[in-house]
Amino acid sequence: MSEQKKTRTTVDIYGTQYSIVGSESTSFIRLVSSIVDDKMREISDKNPTLDSSKLAVLTAVNVVHDYLKIKDELEALQEKIKTEKG
Amino acid sequence: MSEQKKTRTTVDIYGTQYSIVGSESTSFIRLVSSIVDDKMREISDKNPTLDSSKLAVLTAVNVVHDYLKIKDELEALQEKIKTEKG
Repeated sequence: MSEQKKTRTTVDIYGTQYSIVGSESTSFIRLVSSIVDDKMREISDKNPTLDSSKLAVLTAVNVVHDYLKIKDELEALQEKIKTEKG
Repeated sequence: MSEQKKTRTTVDIYGTQYSIVGSESTSFIRLVSSIVDDKMREISDKNPTLDSSKLAVLTAVNVVHDYLKIKDELEALQEKIKTEKG
């Protein structure tokens, strides 16, 4: 890990600033953060009584859900390619 | 949406109970929730001073990051199949 170039990006998510360190580009980190910010606002609109901690947890739940769905799709496609080649 | 069967699942994520309503199975909701719980604990271990709201936001950031990476992978594969067929 220490050989990879690290960037530090400050982003605003749902009114709070975060300093995110990683090997990704600043623009990618900003894109990721804006998606989280959008999702939090979307969930907040539907559940206006949620506190920010619960809101963030439900946002994470939402995104893991989407992640598992797309992972299934990718694996099914990879399996299909394998079967067709075999 | 009203024609879809909705389930209500109560889960525990990072010590807080959530009631999640959706068209997915209870077992799928439990899987999603356990992934969020695991990720929150993983990030908390590395950043023990974070409050639970920030922890949840950074968990969401982490998952959106993984989502975009796998989405890229899926799109690249779909593009490859299209090119090979054409």
